Amino acid sequence: MRAARLAQGDASAFAELDLERTARRGFPEAVYCAGKTAAQVGAIAAAVAERPDVTTLFSRADDDHAAAVLAALPDAAHDPAARLLAWPPQPPAPTGGLVVVLAAGTSDLPVAREAHLTARYLGRPSELVVDVGVAGLHRVLSKLELLRRARVAVVAAGMDGALPSVVAGLVSAPVIGLPTSVGYGAAFGGVAALLTMLNACAPGVSVVNIDNGYGAGHLAAQIAAPEPSR
Amino acid sequence: MRAARLAQGDASAFAELDLERTARRGFPEAVYCAGKTAAQVGAIAAAVAERPDVTTLFSRADDDHAAAVLAALPDAAHDPAARLLAWPPQPPAPTGGLVVVLAAGTSDLPVAREAHLTARYLGRPSELVVDVGVAGLHRVLSKLELLRRARVAVVAAGMDGALPSVVAGLVSAPVIGLPTSVGYGAAFGGVAALLTMLNACAPGVSVVNIDNGYGAGHLAAQIAAPEPSR
Amino acid sequence: MRAARLAQGDASAFAELDLERTARRGFPEAVYCAGKTAAQVGAIAAAVAERPDVTTLFSRADDDHAAAVLAALPDAAHDPAARLLAWPPQPPAPTGGLVVVLAAGTSDLPVAREAHLTARYLGRPSELVVDVGVAGLHRVLSKLELLRRARVAVVAAGMDGALPSVVAGLVSAPVIGLPTSVGYGAAFGGVAALLTMLNACAPGVSVVNIDNGYGAGHLAAQIAAPEPSR
Amino acid sequence: MRAARLAQGDASAFAELDLERTARRGFPEAVYCAGKTAAQVGAIAAAVAERPDVTTLFSRADDDHAAAVLAALPDAAHDPAARLLAWPPQPPAPTGGLVVVLAAGTSDLPVAREAHLTARYLGRPSELVVDVGVAGLHRVLSKLELLRRARVAVVAAGMDGALPSVVAGLVSAPVIGLPTSVGYGAAFGGVAALLTMLNACAPGVSVVNIDNGYGAGHLAAQIAAPEPSR
Amino acid sequence: MRAARLAQGDASAFAELDLERTARRGFPEAVYCAGKTAAQVGAIAAAVAERPDVTTLFSRADDDHAAAVLAALPDAAHDPAARLLAWPPQPPAPTGGLVVVLAAGTSDLPVAREAHLTARYLGRPSELVVDVGVAGLHRVLSKLELLRRARVAVVAAGMDGALPSVVAGLVSAPVIGLPTSVGYGAAFGGVAALLTMLNACAPGVSVVNIDNGYGAGHLAAQIAAPEPSR
Amino acid sequence: MRAARLAQGDASAFAELDLERTARRGFPEAVYCAGKTAAQVGAIAAAVAERPDVTTLFSRADDDHAAAVLAALPDAAHDPAARLLAWPPQPPAPTGGLVVVLAAGTSDLPVAREAHLTARYLGRPSELVVDVGVAGLHRVLSKLELLRRARVAVVAAGMDGALPSVVAGLVSAPVIGLPTSVGYGAAFGGVAALLTMLNACAPGVSVVNIDNGYGAGHLAAQIAAPEPSR
Amino acid sequence: MRAARLAQGDASAFAELDLERTARRGFPEAVYCAGKTAAQVGAIAAAVAERPDVTTLFSRADDDHAAAVLAALPDAAHDPAARLLAWPPQPPAPTGGLVVVLAAGTSDLPVAREAHLTARYLGRPSELVVDVGVAGLHRVLSKLELLRRARVAVVAAGMDGALPSVVAGLVSAPVIGLPTSVGYGAAFGGVAALLTMLNACAPGVSVVNIDNGYGAGHLAAQIAAPEPSR
Amino acid sequence: MRAARLAQGDASAFAELDLERTARRGFPEAVYCAGKTAAQVGAIAAAVAERPDVTTLFSRADDDHAAAVLAALPDAAHDPAARLLAWPPQPPAPTGGLVVVLAAGTSDLPVAREAHLTARYLGRPSELVVDVGVAGLHRVLSKLELLRRARVAVVAAGMDGALPSVVAGLVSAPVIGLPTSVGYGAAFGGVAALLTMLNACAPGVSVVNIDNGYGAGHLAAQIAAPEPSR
Repeated sequence: MRAARLAQGDASAFAELDLERTARRGFPEAVYCAGKTAAQVGAIAAAVAERPDVTTLFSRADDDHAAAVLAALPDAAHDPAARLLAWPPQPPAPTGGLVVVLAAGTSDLPVAREAHLTARYLGRPSELVVDVGVAGLHRVLSKLELLRRARVAVVAAGMDGALPSVVAGLVSAPVIGLPTSVGYGAAFGGVAALLTMLNACAPGVSVVNIDNGYGAGHLAAQIAAPEPSR
Repeated sequence: MRAARLAQGDASAFAELDLERTARRGFPEAVYCAGKTAAQVGAIAAAVAERPDVTTLFSRADDDHAAAVLAALPDAAHDPAARLLAWPPQPPAPTGGLVVVLAAGTSDLPVAREAHLTARYLGRPSELVVDVGVAGLHRVLSKLELLRRARVAVVAAGMDGALPSVVAGLVSAPVIGLPTSVGYGAAFGGVAALLTMLNACAPGVSVVNIDNGYGAGHLAAQIAAPEPSR
Repeated sequence: MRAARLAQGDASAFAELDLERTARRGFPEAVYCAGKTAAQVGAIAAAVAERPDVTTLFSRADDDHAAAVLAALPDAAHDPAARLLAWPPQPPAPTGGLVVVLAAGTSDLPVAREAHLTARYLGRPSELVVDVGVAGLHRVLSKLELLRRARVAVVAAGMDGALPSVVAGLVSAPVIGLPTSVGYGAAFGGVAALLTMLNACAPGVSVVNIDNGYGAGHLAAQIAAPEPSR
Repeated sequence: MRAARLAQGDASAFAELDLERTARRGFPEAVYCAGKTAAQVGAIAAAVAERPDVTTLFSRADDDHAAAVLAALPDAAHDPAARLLAWPPQPPAPTGGLVVVLAAGTSDLPVAREAHLTARYLGRPSELVVDVGVAGLHRVLSKLELLRRARVAVVAAGMDGALPSVVAGLVSAPVIGLPTSVGYGAAFGGVAALLTMLNACAPGVSVVNIDNGYGAGHLAAQIAAPEPSR
Repeated sequence: MRAARLAQGDASAFAELDLERTARRGFPEAVYCAGKTAAQVGAIAAAVAERPDVTTLFSRADDDHAAAVLAALPDAAHDPAARLLAWPPQPPAPTGGLVVVLAAGTSDLPVAREAHLTARYLGRPSELVVDVGVAGLHRVLSKLELLRRARVAVVAAGMDGALPSVVAGLVSAPVIGLPTSVGYGAAFGGVAALLTMLNACAPGVSVVNIDNGYGAGHLAAQIAAPEPSR
Repeated sequence: MRAARLAQGDASAFAELDLERTARRGFPEAVYCAGKTAAQVGAIAAAVAERPDVTTLFSRADDDHAAAVLAALPDAAHDPAARLLAWPPQPPAPTGGLVVVLAAGTSDLPVAREAHLTARYLGRPSELVVDVGVAGLHRVLSKLELLRRARVAVVAAGMDGALPSVVAGLVSAPVIGLPTSVGYGAAFGGVAALLTMLNACAPGVSVVNIDNGYGAGHLAAQIAAPEPSR
Repeated sequence: MRAARLAQGDASAFAELDLERTARRGFPEAVYCAGKTAAQVGAIAAAVAERPDVTTLFSRADDDHAAAVLAALPDAAHDPAARLLAWPPQPPAPTGGLVVVLAAGTSDLPVAREAHLTARYLGRPSELVVDVGVAGLHRVLSKLELLRRARVAVVAAGMDGALPSVVAGLVSAPVIGLPTSVGYGAAFGGVAALLTMLNACAPGVSVVNIDNGYGAGHLAAQIAAPEPSR
Repeated sequence: MRAARLAQGDASAFAELDLERTARRGFPEAVYCAGKTAAQVGAIAAAVAERPDVTTLFSRADDDHAAAVLAALPDAAHDPAARLLAWPPQPPAPTGGLVVVLAAGTSDLPVAREAHLTARYLGRPSELVVDVGVAGLHRVLSKLELLRRARVAVVAAGMDGALPSVVAGLVSAPVIGLPTSVGYGAAFGGVAALLTMLNACAPGVSVVNIDNGYGAGHLAAQIAAPEPSR
């Protein structure tokens, strides 16, 4: 019975792991921890331990989730701000185009780090730039040289979410808008920034879910993938 | 009876005109035409004709409203794009600080014109600048000298509504965000731009209702008023 | 004065054309017709006529807009369903990776065509596939071979907007979710599909605005761009 | 006085129990614990103890509610993940058609269990299947044989909520969409999944409230009821 | 080329007809006309003409769509209020349980008729009852005998959408809530009724999309299907 | 058959008239015309003609509805602005307390008239006051004597909907907030005014649906009813 | 200075008490505790202690607020479930018409008690009836005799909020809909019930804010006031 | 590496301080603490300590943020209710026009204090007035003399948010509407007040974000700035 198997730490009782996904789709699967119990996440980590050939990410991991992963995979890399764990801990050697991740403000940093680390663990070179909001245009303009080297830019912003529009007007690379839940009341937990980005007046912007740094980083890794990996 | 008085074109049957408002508040009252019948607007225009000492604006006037006003006040000024009429037709000599009105795109022009003309008819010098959206920063940066002469800037933008954030980061004058209903589906008739402006990451931005060029122009005229008029 | 210049058909009175954008950003600018008068669009078309070296797209063109463009550029290509015109009429020779555009249902076809034609006019090879909604999985599964050749997939869907999730689970290319306003009451003009796509349980999906086929096609052209053009 | 009666544990002070409902409607009443005090729930449990001939469910029971029920009915069955208690603890012998409950992901499991147990306690045979999201179509396709034996399917999904559309395209049985509050920001606590399901492009899907596993299970038991019980 | 084939009235250019769906899923496919051109609908009707063994429904057909269908299938049945056409015109002999469709008010009648006719054309016996809103409980109570014979009830209501709650409290059959877009401003085009039904305090209610009479009728036909057809 | 009976103008085919409602509930039923065909409304009017002892109101009647009513009841009273017809045309002699209806602006007048006439036809004395918005407090303060004689006040306002709060702070009578759909974009068709009134900081305000003048007038007539009629 | 006066417990530093309101408007003012500090509420209670001739209510009082009030007014009446305190503790002798308060379910009881106690402390006779939801019509029908004696009914309901519609169809008294925040996800914290009540298909229903038992009770006391008190 | 630098308390690792902003824009930058860690805020405070010539504000500072600031800047001024710190602690000598800040109720006081202190620290004379809601018009009317001396008024209000409309009708100065999150359920955390203010029927009102006292105070300081500072 499932309940019994779960008590025995058998992840197959509640999750169908897809460890062949890397071979099939070119990118490994991540374990979304929110809504899972620490016991469930721990059981998945134990199952993963048999496959060091595949990089596994654990996203949205709170302290309890992280402890359960680290109990099964003691050398896993852990970034608490980004709520992300990775195992094996060493990212692959970078291949493909450059991913540039921008955080409009310091408060957007945790989500931006999640995107940056995800792209890095999925095999891309990645650079992270912080505090370049549109209220001080000189800041973003000073990063133009870096931005123009990017194969894709991830732009994390809360509040008005205006930075992706400005960046997309400056570069020819595609821009992934990553709205964050930072802001006062009518930011509506990131909805204002999300709508701004969906309505970007510069073409070349698409949008992922609010605070979804993992999704933005994954997509960036796909866009910047080297030819052979597709 | 009211119905009879209305049939006789007596505006007092359905509207309490406040022609002393200029003396009391320093600014004349406008007649909001939407939701009024052409007959009602015409009756108000006829009542206004006795007071050439007060500038009266008719806002949100469709073709029928405009015809009714012009029947009563044949020399009234009429800007069909801005849906605005003014009588007497000549604006007062400009006093106070400069009002600069920016339209992010050509599609924002009708609303921006309504703001520009309102500020002008309420007695301020006003300049209108078009097509300076953030997708091409060089356009707005080329207007910096003008912007820095402004006592107040009105910034009309639809879609992402990002321009007020950028402008507020460049000048020390207050910025009035004027969201317009321009844009694709998730612009939600101006709500996206409205939220962007409410969440402007640069301080110094406040917001008026969607497409409310009259309100933006009136407020700008108050902010830029010369000392004696307050 | 602007009004006079506009009357003379001088587009510089209300629009700052950016014909150097192709050189600067690698992609030409489009003229968004909605909210502009036919006269304004016609004046822009006349200005464009001097630059056959740059491909110009006119998006969201209704019948009046189209007539105004065709008066100035009689040989422009016109797709009424997609509300798109292009001049010069011949798209550039295709370079870069393959763009595959999927329309979940026949009702999504106009928006999907706008994306397909935009990608094509911006220089990419592009294929359009119709009526592959998730209610009949065999339809989309029968297109797997084509999908796996794509450098990027644009997936247009209204109603439940579920197709991008399914496609992203099948391929390693990035997927651009293109929500359409097709559906019954609680589709809310495309909001339901938009939310579905933002919440895609398969990573690799990002989203553009509702019915924004132009934006999806432009972004796809950027993602699939050949190395030298970046 | 009511207050006194309540102090004495007399449930009739604040609740009109309807223990004849099974006879009248064919299904027993459940006690919705959320919003009730533990004392109120305990008093109801005590009243129920006199009627072992009727199965009573306590839904949305937090730890305090559960303790109060177990104090009055020590042998009640309790599933903490599903927040459900049942008394008498043994479900009736299964009659009628098969109810199949699917959970798209592990995080949807608590709500899916609530549906599964409710259907089971209301007398139906029921099977629960986990982690069959649309991001890996092979998972759901591997359950086709089971799905085609179902008289009704309950499909629990958060995030994009796309699974019910796919399932409804595969089977002829009715599908009950059960949206869960699992997901990132723009999942809006289950609203995105709810809208997806309401807009399912495959006919045969109807929807219950977000996280309402009890309602889904009850409805499934009605749809799959054997002829005599109707 | 598709465009050419479409010009020649070849439906395969834009639609993948699924005429084997009846054999596979037990219910025929419907053609959703909204968003399709009359020419497209007409081409589909012409293709359908070769398969009189399958009942085809055309839903959401406006006058132009209907004319196109009737040109290809002159003897098709047409209910303009329900915006529905069926071919062959004669519904199959009724089998399975009784479908009872209730319309709370006269204004809900077109949507209720669409549900009633759909259930009937998919092979069920069906009864339609009108003007039984909760403001006059005696009306609905007078239909109790009929309601208790139903295998499933479809309850169409706009405004407060309260009728499904009341009906579900009276019968043991499952209730399909069918919200309509009837009502004053804060009915929000059926959203208020939709929410009411999702929150029905009586278990046994599930909900379909606003004004989606086709979906409600199809689901009812599935629930009331005779054993062999499942 | 119903269809046949409807063709014969037999209202019982689609509506259950409740002409005994006056005896039972003390107030007659109204016929809500929106969503009904002119033929249906005309058939109801014909049925009503046999009962001159009961006052029947037809609300939300467009021109076609009105023509159908007047064909059956040629002497019916008709107020096109309020979209209301009444038969018999003469309202009953007024009894009970005074109903005062205020319209904040001229644009709110049609809805306010509907409330005023409804209260009058249901038997109350009623006064209508126009253009007393809070932007000019002296206007509403000049009506204090009348307001303090009211048994109940109906306050119609769009835009900010602030008038009910102010009135409720001035009088001890209950205030019915009647939001109207008048205003610029972020008025959201009356939602802004509705929310303002629901959040009135002065107690004593309750709210009816947007533009629901009939509902406000009916409720006012109930509140101000003379003792014997209850 | 204000800060100093506040430190000294001088309520005039932050609140303008209006103890003459009873004389002026006929009803005393209440102190809304939410958002005030316990120190502020305590200072107000101390100020109130000098006026035993006026009944003062403290609404939305959490435990800290209540302790502060009881420190200043030790004999104040306190109903923790309703979060209400009253001083002097004895309500006035009842005058005027009967207020009947209905709670659809037990979970709605705290809000219903707040309405009931408010009406009682403002001087009306009041009866409270619990657990009469529309899922069991026999419950509410069994209270008809009481309901028909009411001068006004307050009907508290969460979830579908359908009870006010049903009650309004049964009585001639006005009905105050009191939506509560009880329910599953798509109850949206009471919004669903609020919308249901605003759209009540029976006339005679108006609505107050979600969970606003104080407002409902105050309004009921005004509607049922004896003639001399108005 | 950034992480290392952050560990060493080097603010440049995660924030680009803009201490020249006073010289450039005329107003100093504030540090928005929400979303930053206490360590990050402390590092910024340490960097600021080298620039006593610039006034730095720390907004939205919780207890941990405040402790970190005070550790680095022990003599900083701290207003816990307004969640604001300022350093150097002494505001500049007041210049420019008078800023009047009104709080509708005591619960609006924290946000109003944030606006008042911000204006004061940015160099303006400022007065704060409390508890002048529209439910008691005599309160606001008693402040008319002060209001008419204002160069700009900031009006903080929750619930119905009606006060800015009333104030704008009384004065010729511009009014900044500052919605607060105070209120019952349908206040929606300040959205109701925000919408009211956006729809103010008196011209001269603009709006900032919910609870954004800092933004309102900053804008007021800009509007009331003395001529030379612009």
